[in-house]
This record gives sequence, structure tokens and C-alpha cells, in this order.
Amino acid sequence: MTEVTAKSKKTISRIIFLPFDIALEVPLGTRILDAIKKAGLPLSTSCGGKGTCGDCLVQILKGNYQSKQSAALPDQLQKKGYALACLTEAKDDLFVHLPKFQQITIQAVSTYQFFEENKDRLSGIYEVNPSVKKVKLRIPPPSLEDNSSDLKRLMREVEKKEGIETLNCEYSVLKKLAHTVRKKGGEISAVLFGSGKFWKIIDIEPSDGEEKIYGLSCDLGTTTVVLNLVDLKNGKTLETASSLNQQISRGEDIISRINYAQKSSKLRELRKLIVTTVNNLIEKVAKSAQISPFEIYYASFSGNTTMTHFFLNLEPRYIREEPYVPTFNDLPLIPNRNLGLKINPEAMVHFAPAVGSYVGGDITAGLLCTPILCDAEKISVFIDAGTNGELVVGNKEWLVTCACSAGPAFEGSGIKCGMPATEGAIEKIKLNDKGETKYTVIGKIKPKGLCGSGLVDLLAELFFHGFIDRFGKFTNKTIKTRLYKNETETGFLIENASHCYWGKALIITEKDIANLIRTKAAVFSACSLLLKKVGLNFDRIDDFYIAGGFGQHLNIENAICIGLLPDLELAKFHYLGNSSLLGASLILLSDKNREIVKEIAKKMTYIELNTEPQYMNEYTGALFLPHTNMDLFPSLRKILKAWLLSKIL
Amino acid sequence: MTEVTAKSKKTISRIIFLPFDIALEVPLGTRILDAIKKAGLPLSTSCGGKGTCGDCLVQILKGNYQSKQSAALPDQLQKKGYALACLTEAKDDLFVHLPKFQQITIQAVSTYQFFEENKDRLSGIYEVNPSVKKVKLRIPPPSLEDNSSDLKRLMREVEKKEGIETLNCEYSVLKKLAHTVRKKGGEISAVLFGSGKFWKIIDIEPSDGEEKIYGLSCDLGTTTVVLNLVDLKNGKTLETASSLNQQISRGEDIISRINYAQKSSKLRELRKLIVTTVNNLIEKVAKSAQISPFEIYYASFSGNTTMTHFFLNLEPRYIREEPYVPTFNDLPLIPNRNLGLKINPEAMVHFAPAVGSYVGGDITAGLLCTPILCDAEKISVFIDAGTNGELVVGNKEWLVTCACSAGPAFEGSGIKCGMPATEGAIEKIKLNDKGETKYTVIGKIKPKGLCGSGLVDLLAELFFHGFIDRFGKFTNKTIKTRLYKNETETGFLIENASHCYWGKALIITEKDIANLIRTKAAVFSACSLLLKKVGLNFDRIDDFYIAGGFGQHLNIENAICIGLLPDLELAKFHYLGNSSLLGASLILLSDKNREIVKEIAKKMTYIELNTEPQYMNEYTGALFLPHTNMDLFPSLRKILKAWLLSKIL
Repeated sequence: MTEVTAKSKKTISRIIFLPFDIALEVPLGTRILDAIKKAGLPLSTSCGGKGTCGDCLVQILKGNYQSKQSAALPDQLQKKGYALACLTEAKDDLFVHLPKFQQITIQAVSTYQFFEENKDRLSGIYEVNPSVKKVKLRIPPPSLEDNSSDLKRLMREVEKKEGIETLNCEYSVLKKLAHTVRKKGGEISAVLFGSGKFWKIIDIEPSDGEEKIYGLSCDLGTTTVVLNLVDLKNGKTLETASSLNQQISRGEDIISRINYAQKSSKLRELRKLIVTTVNNLIEKVAKSAQISPFEIYYASFSGNTTMTHFFLNLEPRYIREEPYVPTFNDLPLIPNRNLGLKINPEAMVHFAPAVGSYVGGDITAGLLCTPILCDAEKISVFIDAGTNGELVVGNKEWLVTCACSAGPAFEGSGIKCGMPATEGAIEKIKLNDKGETKYTVIGKIKPKGLCGSGLVDLLAELFFHGFIDRFGKFTNKTIKTRLYKNETETGFLIENASHCYWGKALIITEKDIANLIRTKAAVFSACSLLLKKVGLNFDRIDDFYIAGGFGQHLNIENAICIGLLPDLELAKFHYLGNSSLLGASLILLSDKNREIVKEIAKKMTYIELNTEPQYMNEYTGALFLPHTNMDLFPSLRKILKAWLLSKIL
Repeated sequence: MTEVTAKSKKTISRIIFLPFDIALEVPLGTRILDAIKKAGLPLSTSCGGKGTCGDCLVQILKGNYQSKQSAALPDQLQKKGYALACLTEAKDDLFVHLPKFQQITIQAVSTYQFFEENKDRLSGIYEVNPSVKKVKLRIPPPSLEDNSSDLKRLMREVEKKEGIETLNCEYSVLKKLAHTVRKKGGEISAVLFGSGKFWKIIDIEPSDGEEKIYGLSCDLGTTTVVLNLVDLKNGKTLETASSLNQQISRGEDIISRINYAQKSSKLRELRKLIVTTVNNLIEKVAKSAQISPFEIYYASFSGNTTMTHFFLNLEPRYIREEPYVPTFNDLPLIPNRNLGLKINPEAMVHFAPAVGSYVGGDITAGLLCTPILCDAEKISVFIDAGTNGELVVGNKEWLVTCACSAGPAFEGSGIKCGMPATEGAIEKIKLNDKGETKYTVIGKIKPKGLCGSGLVDLLAELFFHGFIDRFGKFTNKTIKTRLYKNETETGFLIENASHCYWGKALIITEKDIANLIRTKAAVFSACSLLLKKVGLNFDRIDDFYIAGGFGQHLNIENAICIGLLPDLELAKFHYLGNSSLLGASLILLSDKNREIVKEIAKKMTYIELNTEPQYMNEYTGALFLPHTNMDLFPSLRKILKAWLLSKIL
């Protein structure tokens, strides 16, 4: 009896952190904040874990815990199971949710609709003619008159039905061939992969009469992974799902993850995290759509060069060491057998080709969704502002590209009040002369923070009302009542604690503003330098395509006002959304796009900003609101002049 | 102390049977014969295990045993560690050698010399231009001016050096690419596989300055597996090795093994046995030649259809069920990754194409070694008499083929005094009128038995001297002093016990003779039927090629005399030896032969004897010495007439 009791006495707490799905075992009584740190999760606190800043807010979804009270934690939140990680100890196995990293739920993007509407405005081709198909065949039984081998009879039927002559067959198909062709009167489904004359039988099974076949396209983002489940018979997107990249727990940006991967065991760990992230999403979409993941025979990935290296377990270190060389840019299709995705093992996996270490498949795939290749006269600019920023300038004849370490500020990272464009995010905001705010919140709930478009608005409004100067510092015009101070920080008050979801005031500090300015400067100066490299001015730009994480409601005028975007006619700007995912879907749907994206990658000249002496000058010049050189912003200058005049008169 | 003693007390004996390398655990004290039966080894005894026939002779190479004396076991053998398995108990772990299944040691066939001498007498092409090559490259380090990916720089160098444009790359290469190109100043060895414009990089390693690369060709025989290690730089065969197919322990012929494989776990067992047989040979040749098996990048197999199915873990049952259909006849190359040969995992493996269930890759490969395709006028016959017998008739324009269940009698199986053509085998024998024998023994030692050519001689001599009649029965002319009798059998005495290696008389019984007659009848009637099918007589045959296990010294006249071979001019017969292995080597050395052998297979019309009503008539007619229809043996008839006349006169 004594023994049994001793065994059942718990000394270890197993904590599962959501939305990461990361599990950790710690001694009972461990402080949650310490467990978070041990798990490597990037949660920082301004007060150093003293229970005053409230940055380490968590929600305990399941399990017993012991928590101290704090002024930084409103009662109504405490009642809902919220706690400050620095004041809470585990007394049980716990499920702990970190609200800062909320599970991103992205509305299913109707790629189908997008493609239908933009058919003529794509560099890629929109057609449903994928490289993989499932066909129903009846293999006649052998006889003494025709005792051809099972394989021969199978190939003959494929040829008869599909008109495909050059056929090959996977070893795995052979292994089950004899039994499969002898079930159900020889009625089988054959999965064929290939194009033109070159096809391969990659799977067979007794026909269920439906011949369902699916594909998936996936944007492998540094922060967010988004996945589409596509019906390959009609090209329709059945489900979309997204989640945080589990690798975040090993570093928020690419560089810190490359450093983390120095040891090969750590590289394998990063690979496992991204594959798990994708596999969880596959499970999710398959469940929603009520399909078997084994009916997925084709996957199309687009991601930046480093993410693709992580996914394929390839050494990433030389990507960040001069002269910045990846293992590969373009790759043939890889059978899933080698990759471990939870889809059919015989599925083929495509990775959109990269151009260089910092311009990856997400960009080349994204360009498929623009008409940049459709015209030899017009000059287009394409910008994808994700965790990194990438730019492309060019037309049908030529393309130049570069990347800039913009940082994920506009995705909500590194900014105290920042967050992704999900429920609770302020996506639009306006100030009046008194500094009072008016805003729109996604999901129409109390605000939790600001997403990219909200931050752009806020910066523009602060600048436009003179509450910050051209250096991003608060001025003497800043309304005193809007300045917020506590022990640790001073900032501009966006919303009072009582009106905010977390019961904590939303503020923006000078540090946050500096961070945003650095980001916008990185983007703008890269664009400016790229144009100079090809001898063009901003006024030569005919179209400006914006992809990435700003959210649908980016106010272009405000983005120009803060010097993030160049001062062009508004009609020239086009918002694409997640073009990387859209491009991956285009590749999935037509093998012609596999060729086109290859051509795009080949055509692109990559310019390495790290080694451009001019870049530092450009960047320094852009560290102002909007820019040190106002000639670059003629219409803005006109407005500002008029505004100043109105103030004087 | 007590415990230790208890543990060390042995109750189990682990017996390893050679030359099979099959291990088995039995209780201490088990009779060796029972262990042999438990291991499934095909050792039969005439006396039923009573210690009188001496059929179960074994040699205990290591370990303690207890054995009873027997008249059937001469003293001198007992001293050398020989024992009768039925009278011997295991008292220890044992190494037991079964002399009946001796390790076959085949002299290294200089394929190189064969090809050099027969260049113009081959349907295949003799050239050293294999599908795989290892090239030394220097990959220049990347720079800011040329920061192409590692893969791009590698491909560029391959193109520069080899003039190969269309290149692909294995995933496994990518995984080690970054590190490999940064060692030894970028000097690497790249292994390329392909032909024409289509090449693939299948492996890379830091260059050791030698770029050694090897291939192996292998004849997958039902009874015997023979393997050549080939230097792919010059085409020379470095080593040859052979051994019994370990599958023998699960059935001596193909049909019994197919029956054994009914359960899929048993199929996997058969696959494991054949792969182990091949892997043991690989280890052996690699050791002899002092090379690393990982430098073997290409393997070319030829074997009958069922053996290939076993090797690839494919369902064999439909091969033996009407209408006799295999899973495949022709197959693309398979990466060794899927097969588990102990050579480089990236090696590519080729299987010579089959024509039907009972005419396999051993035959199509064998035809490469004849000039059968070189002439549209001449008619050739090709016969491969192994465990099964296969025949081909035709020329450049057409080929017909069939198989007959000849049985392995001429390989020494199923015949009391039979054995393979190895040391101790009587390969030539003559009788005088008194029935006394004169013979030549391989290795010039006391005889152990008779190989195929010896058996043919013996049968012919017995018939020619009138000691057996046309039905194979002893006549009243059979010299009484040559008739040997003991409790269990009566037969013709070939050699007295005292002159024989095993101290046991060599005899041939009427049952043995009947067995040999059935075999020769199966071969002859198949040949006769095949010719009739294409409307030809024996006199239209221009060349007759003999491949397989008869041994080099087959006396053609004697083979005609017993009605095994047709009555043609001696100059028309050509002995090829192991043409299956030679053909596999030809395929290894030139990718053109891969195409030629494919063409050969396509051109062949397969005739299923099992369903030919005529066949039984032909067969019955051939169950005589030489044949019921003496018109088929005109010159033999002439000789016989002369001989009979001389007796009468």
C-alpha cells in the first residue's frame, strides 16, 4: 500500500503551451514564467518578472495553479482563468495559453474567386490541370490468350484512357499490384504524376468509385504558416488554416534560428518543429473537409530560402555568412517519402524556386499573382513585407530584387501594442487635435492591440498632428493628458485600461516608434536603391504591388505619409494579400506555372544590400518622417505646405 | 555462486549449418538430423535415419558432439570429424557442414576476355561506357561576385567537365552539399547516373584523388547465385564469387518456394534469404578486392521471373496459377535505398527484363551473349538448362521462346550420385564392355559424385554398351559384377567405396536414370515443339547455343546419343557457360545494352507449354533413349546400325 501511494504522489508538472503545442516537464511548484523561459518561448517582460507590467499574461485552460494577486491583473480577467506567469506556480499538469501568441485564424481565402477575378492580371496561368490525377480504370483479367504481366495490362489501360505513352511506375505500386488488380473485378484508381509525355504511376488502389484527389499549397512563413486544401478535380480551395510557426520558440527571426541550428541536432529539431506545424494544419483541414489526408497526392510549398532549408534539413549557416550562399535555389520535385508529411507517402512535393539567400520561393510564387511579366513597357514594383521585406522591380524583360531586414514590426512583433491582424486588433485609427482616438477593431470587441495597418495609421496621425516630430520623438505639442507613465515606461495613450480587452492601457512608446521608423526606412531605402541600380526614378513606376502581413486595410495615404511607400498616385497601388500562398496554389493547379515560376526565378537579378556601400546612406536618409529628402514626396510636401499655411493663417 | 553456475549451465545448442549460413537453436542433445529437418534443409535419407545408408553425412567443424559408430561411415572420415547426422547428438554450439551442399567455388570468369574474344559474336555491344561515373571536380568557392547556390556551382562544374546539360540531383546529395563543397578546397567526387542528356547527381564526397567506382553483375539462380565485381573504369572483372541460394532451405525448386510464400510473412522471409545470399557474396568480393562496398554504385541482376519477384518482395503466386501472370516483366531502374543491398544506398539497380512467367531476365540477358540478333537468315537455338530449362529459337527478325520444367537433374539434384561441377565431380566417364569405368575428376581427387556432363556420359555409355535399354532399364546384358545391392537399393556400380572420397560406393539406380530421362525428354520435346510452332525442322538450325550448368566438358555426341540434344553437326554447337551472368555484365558496362535487352524481350513470343495439347505427345515420345522416332536422329541411327551390324557379324 505504501508503495502505491509513493508512486502516485506527483512531483512533476507537464505543461503544454498553446498555441504552440509545446510540452515541457518541470518540478511541481515551478513558476510559469520560468517554464516559459525554459521552453524557449519569446515572452519578454518590462518589469523583469516582478508582477507590475502585466506583459506575462497567460490563461490557464486546465489544471491547478497558485497565483498571487497584482494590480496589473484586473479582477474580471482573473475570474476567466487569466494569471500573470511571474506570480503563478504550477500545482498540476497544465494547459497554458499565451494570449500574445494567439492562434491565428485566417478566413478561407477563396483562391478560386481570386483567380477567376484576376485571370488577366496574373503572370501565371489559371487553369485546373495539375501534374497529378487519379483515374478510374478497369484492368481486364489475364487469360491464356493475353497473359501479359499485371504491369503491362495496367499500362495499356492508362494509355487507352489517357493517351499517355511514356509511363513509369513506382516500386511501391508494384508491391501491391498483383492483389489490387484482382479485387473488385479489376476496377482500380490509378494516381498518375507527370506532364506532357512523361508520366509515372505513383499509387493504385481498388476503386471506390469516386477517385477523390487533393492537393495542398502552403506558405512557409517565418512567423506564420498558412495552408490551403485544394480539390484537384475542380481547383476549389476547400479549407484554409494557419498557425504560428512552432520554430518561434527557438528564435523569432531567421537569423536567430540559423544561429540556433549550429549543431546538427538542433537543425533536426527545427525541421521537426516546422514539419509538425504543417502536419497539424494538414490534420486540421482534412478533418474540417472530412477527407483522408492520404488522398492528398501533391503539395506545393513557397517559403523564404532559410525556411525551405529548415524544412529540408539542409545546412543553413552559409546563408548568413558572407557571401550568403544557400545550398540550392531551385530543386526538382521531392517524393514525400523523404519528407514525412502526413499525406500520401507517394505524394510529390514542390518548392517554389528561390533567387538567393534572402529572396525565396515566397517571392517568386508571389510574382505569379501579379501581371509583372505581362508587359515589356510598364515598370512594376512588388513588395512583400513579412518578417523580412523583399522587393522586386521590373517587367517582362528584366527583374531586379533585393531583401531588407525590415523586421517584423508591422506584423506586430517587437512593438508593445503590436499584434497580428486577428480578432481584437485595431486595424484603422484616427486622432483628433486633442489626441483622442477613434478606431475599428477586428471582430468588434474591445481592442487587444494594433495590427500593421493600425500602426501605420497611428504613426501617420501622430506625425500629422505634430505629436511626434520628424525623428519620431514626442514634441511639446503632445497633449499632456495623452502621455501615459508608470514605473517602467512613458508613451502615448491609445486607449485607457478600462476600454481594453486585457484591462491594460494600450500605449505606444518612443522605442516602439523608433522601431517602426527603422522598419519603414529599411523598406523605403531598399526600394529607392533598387530603382537607382537600374537607373530609374520613382515616377517611372507604373504599378506597385503590396503583398504580406499588413492586413487588408492598409491606408496607402498614411503609408506614404510616414515614408513607408513612395509618393505615387493612389491608383498605382494594388493590394495582393498572401501572394506567396496564392502563387503556391497556382503552381499546384497547373504544371505550366512550375515552368513559369522557374523562368521568373532565372530572370531575377539579386542585389545583396549587405554589401552595397550606398545602402547605409539611403537607410539613414529614410530614418525620418517621411524622409530627409522631401523632394521624394512631392504631393505630400504640397499637402504639408497647405496644412502649415492653414495653421499660420 | 550457485546462481552464476546455474546461469552458465548450457541447455541450448546453437547450430550453424554451412554452406547455408543458417543458424538454429535446439535443446542440447538434439539429433543433428532432426535439427537439419527443423532448419528446412533438403537432406533426404534412403534408410529413414537408421544409420545404414550414409546419406546424411555431415562434417562437424567446431563444437562437441556424441556420435554412434556405423558401417556406413568409414574410419578415416570419422577421424576427420565426419559423422552421420542421424546418429549424432549436439552437446555444444556447433558448426555443421553439409558436404552435399558444398560451397561452390567458381573460377573467376574473365568476362573481359570473353567479351574481347567474342566482340563480333554478341547481340549486345561490348564497350566500357556505363550509366554511372564518378568524376573529380573543383567547385570554386562562392564570392560576392558569384554567390550562386552550392547546387548551381556544382552543376556548372559538371556541365563544364562532362558537357551534360540536363541535370538533376538526389535529395541525399543536397543534405551534405554545403559541407562537402567546403572541404578539401572544394575538390569533390561526384557520382553521376544517366545516359545521353539525362543525368542525375546521385552522390558526392570530398575527393580522395582516385575516384574509384565499381559495379556488380549477378545471376540470381534458383540453386546458385553468382556475382561479379566489376571495375567500372575499365570494365575488368575483379572478383567472382558464388554460393548456394539460401532459399534452398525453403524449397529446392521455384514451385515449392512459391507455395511456401503463400503467407506474406513467408514471402518476406524468402526475400531476406536471397538478399542475404547476395549481401554475403558482396562482402566476400569486396574483401578479396580490398574495396569498400560503398564504392559500388550500380548493380545489374539477371534471374528468372520468380527469383526477381522474390528479390523485390512481389507476390509470386499468380506466376504458377493459370494463366501464369507475373506482376511485371520489364521495370525501370530501382534505387538501392528501396532494396537493402550492402552497397552504396544511392546505387541504381537494374533487372534484366523477362518475357513471361517462366522465361526471365536470365534468358534475355543470356541472348546478349549470342549473335542471335546479328543475322536475319540464320536460325539459332539457345538453351539454358539450369534448375528449369528455357529455350529460344529465332533470328534478327523473330524470336519464340518457352520453358520446360526440366528439373535440376543435370545440376546434380535429385540424383543420388549427382553433384554440381565442383571439386570431386566426375566430369567425363567412359565404360568398357565389362562395365568398368574410366573417368576424370575435377580437382584430381577421389570422386564425390558426377556433375551434369558426367551424367550425360554415363547415360550414353550405359545405353551404348547395352547395359540399359531404350526405356532406361537394366538389361540382361548388364554385367552382374557391376550391379550393386544393399538393403535399400540396387544400381549400377560406378566406383567402389574404397576408391570414393566419402568411402561410399558411387551407384546409379534405375530411379536416377528415369529422372535423367525425364529431364532430357522435357528439354528435347520443348525444342521440338517450339520448332514445329514456327514450321521448322531440326535441319534448319544453323547454330545451337548451350548455356547453363552442364559444366564446360559436356560431350555433345553423348548428349545427342541420349536424345538430350538434337542430331546436328557438331560444329553447330556452341557452349556459352553462365550467359545470364555474362549478359548482366554487358548491361552493366553499357547503357546501350539496356535498350538492346529491352528490344530482345519485346521481340520474343512466349509459348506456354503447360497449355499446349501437343506437348504431352512430344514429351512421351522423348521418354526413350534417344527417342521413339529415330528419324530425328539420322546420324545416330547410322552409327547404331553399323554398331549392331558389327555385333552380328
